[in-house]
Amino acid sequence: MDNKKIGQHISRQFNEEMENMRNKVLTMGGLVEQQIEQAAESFMSSDLGLAEKVILQDDQVDKLQIEIDQECTEILAKRQPAAFDLRMLMATTKIITDLERIGDEAARIAKMTIRLDSTEYYHDQYHEIRHLLEMVKEMLHASLDSVARMDVNDVVAIASQDQKVDHEYGSIIRQLITRMMEDPRNITRALDVLWTVRSLERIGDHSVNICEHVIYMVKGKDVRHISQDELEKVMEK
Amino acid sequence: MDNKKIGQHISRQFNEEMENMRNKVLTMGGLVEQQIEQAAESFMSSDLGLAEKVILQDDQVDKLQIEIDQECTEILAKRQPAAFDLRMLMATTKIITDLERIGDEAARIAKMTIRLDSTEYYHDQYHEIRHLLEMVKEMLHASLDSVARMDVNDVVAIASQDQKVDHEYGSIIRQLITRMMEDPRNITRALDVLWTVRSLERIGDHSVNICEHVIYMVKGKDVRHISQDELEKVMEK
Repeated sequence: MDNKKIGQHISRQFNEEMENMRNKVLTMGGLVEQQIEQAAESFMSSDLGLAEKVILQDDQVDKLQIEIDQECTEILAKRQPAAFDLRMLMATTKIITDLERIGDEAARIAKMTIRLDSTEYYHDQYHEIRHLLEMVKEMLHASLDSVARMDVNDVVAIASQDQKVDHEYGSIIRQLITRMMEDPRNITRALDVLWTVRSLERIGDHSVNICEHVIYMVKGKDVRHISQDELEKVMEK
Repeated sequence: MDNKKIGQHISRQFNEEMENMRNKVLTMGGLVEQQIEQAAESFMSSDLGLAEKVILQDDQVDKLQIEIDQECTEILAKRQPAAFDLRMLMATTKIITDLERIGDEAARIAKMTIRLDSTEYYHDQYHEIRHLLEMVKEMLHASLDSVARMDVNDVVAIASQDQKVDHEYGSIIRQLITRMMEDPRNITRALDVLWTVRSLERIGDHSVNICEHVIYMVKGKDVRHISQDELEKVMEK
């Protein structure tokens, strides 16, 4: 499967519409990647200016979702597509739902940064966030790559990366609980770290969802709600 | 707007396909309502059997999502619908995404019930969960009513109910933090209550999303990401 599929329509204008829509999805993906990076950075460095920027930029993410959805529906109405094109449009509307939710998680982290008392620093906790952030950024980037290349080769790797993220997330939560029990003065800050790692863990889930939508687009198979083993079997076919 | 719109197609079979799909959405909605009720009940009464039932039933929710999505795509390919029908199909695929996520939150609560040590009871905390549960159940029920009747009259009320839910949620979180600080032995259980109320709060958000999809279906307007004031203006038109 390669991108040529998108350029095989009889109507040049139809090609352009599909290509244009796909470019917007990739723009939205790039923006969302930047949003989680900056949101986590703003939290860790108590950078209120950066946090405000993330919150403002969430509007752009939302606008792109609405625009792309509208274009999808217009193409459906005008071109009455079938087969791959129809699947691509249906997958796109789902991919941008997940991207918008990732944007929401970034905005949530940024809002928390602003709400916090910036004098309370616990820098020792941040290596955990940083590690999880790196894992999740890789996942999101790889899932956006699979959208860009319409290629599902890395999907099994991304799904197993998600299992590592879940494991790491569980371990951070346990450490946070221990820290809270040791000294109740840590509770408020530990809860903020907890919400942040929770958001990052959710971003991992959304990245897996995006891959599932790409598999549907490329292979015509709905692989949501199946196990890792079943996924590997589908991908071997 | 009434349900007759759905029965105005020249092809009787097209009518039946749309009606059949809509009935499945309502079945999925009813199942999801039952899931959150039972999940919260299992948590509050440490009923492991009930929690297991909720987890098993989540498969049915997932299966309905996949089935309905497939039917949507088949109708799009076969009937090449326009106007209201097209909007209904696009809205449906989004409504069932939110229903599936509500199902996930229910399963999450049920899994926590099973993970917990059932000897640790803090019954005094549950009236907060119960209150939030009642608020959220009302919201979900009203939003499913708007799907069933394709009627958007209650949407503004549902959106303002969500603001009350958010307010109540914030107040419960603050109480839980106080309780954790007073006695670190409360921390683990308080965190479990915290995850549960978080899930309930998210279900409120999904109920609002469902209403937004119904507005799109009925009025052809995308009202996602707008303020309560703007929503009221759109609804007056």
